[in-house]
Amino acid sequence: MIAADALSAFESLSRDKSIDDEALFEWRVKNRPVGNVTPDDFEWTVGDIPEPGDGEVLLKTYYLGLAPVMRFYMQGTGAAGERVLQPGDVIHGRGVAQVVKSRHPDWREGEMVQGQMGWRTYKVSAMTDQEKFFRMPSNGLPAALGAGVLGMTGLSAHAGFFGCGDPRPGDLMVLSGAAGGVGSMVSQMAANVIGCDVVGIAGGPDKCRFILEHGCSAAIDYKSEDIGERLDALRPDGIDLYFDNVGGETLEACLDRLRMHARIVLCGSISEYTRDVPFKLSNYTQLRRTDSRMQGFFVYNHLPRWNAVMDDMTGWIKDGKLQPVQDIVDGFQNMPRALANLYYGQNVGVQCCSVRGEPDEWI
Amino acid sequence: MIAADALSAFESLSRDKSIDDEALFEWRVKNRPVGNVTPDDFEWTVGDIPEPGDGEVLLKTYYLGLAPVMRFYMQGTGAAGERVLQPGDVIHGRGVAQVVKSRHPDWREGEMVQGQMGWRTYKVSAMTDQEKFFRMPSNGLPAALGAGVLGMTGLSAHAGFFGCGDPRPGDLMVLSGAAGGVGSMVSQMAANVIGCDVVGIAGGPDKCRFILEHGCSAAIDYKSEDIGERLDALRPDGIDLYFDNVGGETLEACLDRLRMHARIVLCGSISEYTRDVPFKLSNYTQLRRTDSRMQGFFVYNHLPRWNAVMDDMTGWIKDGKLQPVQDIVDGFQNMPRALANLYYGQNVGVQCCSVRGEPDEWI
Repeated sequence: MIAADALSAFESLSRDKSIDDEALFEWRVKNRPVGNVTPDDFEWTVGDIPEPGDGEVLLKTYYLGLAPVMRFYMQGTGAAGERVLQPGDVIHGRGVAQVVKSRHPDWREGEMVQGQMGWRTYKVSAMTDQEKFFRMPSNGLPAALGAGVLGMTGLSAHAGFFGCGDPRPGDLMVLSGAAGGVGSMVSQMAANVIGCDVVGIAGGPDKCRFILEHGCSAAIDYKSEDIGERLDALRPDGIDLYFDNVGGETLEACLDRLRMHARIVLCGSISEYTRDVPFKLSNYTQLRRTDSRMQGFFVYNHLPRWNAVMDDMTGWIKDGKLQPVQDIVDGFQNMPRALANLYYGQNVGVQCCSVRGEPDEWI
Repeated sequence: MIAADALSAFESLSRDKSIDDEALFEWRVKNRPVGNVTPDDFEWTVGDIPEPGDGEVLLKTYYLGLAPVMRFYMQGTGAAGERVLQPGDVIHGRGVAQVVKSRHPDWREGEMVQGQMGWRTYKVSAMTDQEKFFRMPSNGLPAALGAGVLGMTGLSAHAGFFGCGDPRPGDLMVLSGAAGGVGSMVSQMAANVIGCDVVGIAGGPDKCRFILEHGCSAAIDYKSEDIGERLDALRPDGIDLYFDNVGGETLEACLDRLRMHARIVLCGSISEYTRDVPFKLSNYTQLRRTDSRMQGFFVYNHLPRWNAVMDDMTGWIKDGKLQPVQDIVDGFQNMPRALANLYYGQNVGVQCCSVRGEPDEWI
């Protein structure tokens, strides 16, 4: 199924749906996806807005983020430290929300938060550690950024790039998934904060143009070009740092071209998520020849550094070093389609959904 | 061919040979090995002892070390930064030697050195950087250690374990090739210097007994036991640090059992050296799930730290924390057999050859 056909199949799913402030709207797992998600995998339900009990708050959703991991949630493989979902459960997803009623001593009405909201327009929460809620300071930046650069995607980009990549000025760098949520942040931090020279890999001429405007000095279009040949031309001296969002053959091509003391950051492997059998890496011993390392990271382990990371990101946005890029789908009814966008490589920047737009005010 | 048959085939190669101080004896590449080395791959030659020219020294060989990489040298694959050998060339190999004549301003007669001697009983050298010669201090320890713990094997063990492994007290560690040259040093440094808890993997009951006496708290016999099952039993909480000397399925089994923030050191891949096609790693993405890293190293990059590493090793030997283990084959004529020992898993500790025993005196 080509992308346009697949995505138009989601139109009928959302066509007759809309939300208001008088009820609770939710998206649930209907069927476990096999391969890419289809409209049949999602169920829309409507109910009463719940009342917070003692020690709880009522949260009202403004934005929800979309991430490739969500298909694993729906498949019940319990990825990434979240509870395993069963058919009928509300889908996991982090979002930006406002406290609209509070019976919790630590949270006040009017505060903005971001954390594990799930695909719902309201949520009653005791603000447990499991949900990983963080206050969003009112700093003059849009609330939408809490579903992107000032949220878990931003933490992933920062932790992966600085925490694992050990980047150095002048590093000859390669970045796959360069037009994506994490990629578009990493390319800008690499170029504008550290001073790396970044070759970005993305799919199609539009994305390649985009990444050249967002930190990359050269672009490889994986849909029309041979990655190995282009790397040989663009990186004749090899690679110091490869930030990997795709895995598979692209990772192998970079392993074959490492310089001494190179670093590979394993951030994502979207090319592998729909393979029937895992990709097998034939050349990991290149790490030995070049004194190099390959490091993965699990973003939740970096939560203790949340405040410092958000301070960095906020400062760079205000300095103009980091331009936030979000691909915002309008309307909660379009969440399934927004998720499908990711797998068909449609989004540029962080994929998210505006449930209600920006809040009027915010303390 | 079983090990005993293969190794006895080397007996006839050495039977009629011996060396003296009146001539130069050398072992050369006769045929490029296909798979394991055979007696037909080696040629013994006798010639005149060369005279050093201006700026050169004459070195007299006392010990030579054996390493798995030597088969690659003989195959002409030019591994590890050394010159590519042609049939007829003297085989590369590091050893311990004494300066017996000097016309070089920086080296005095009577000094002991270790470096790239090649498989020969004398060598004239201009002591170039390429040969990587180091002075051996006269510190009361045997000169033989320069072909082991106080030589390149010691640097490999130290650089890999400390430089890449980032070891911490209490680390739940796994070590393959635990009875080998590097392995027997790493197990003792891990247990006695850092305080790691080391499960060692080795082949056969004798080696398993040996490693339990040299730093390992438990042993897995890969020849008779299932490594995965035994790791599940011995490491039910997983692995913090895996020091890999073998690669292949053992590496895969450890990747599947990593704890958070684990480290894998890629030191050697002897299980892969005779495969027709490279081993393919199916589960490298486990590094992501566990915030872990896999790091290779190329020992020559660590040469700048030579003196500091040798000071560490010497101190630990004198403190009793590191017991040097060398498997010394007597007689230069037995060099081919000593090399074959490595591939048949015969050696315990560092495999080396005594050409002339210990020197009488040494400045």
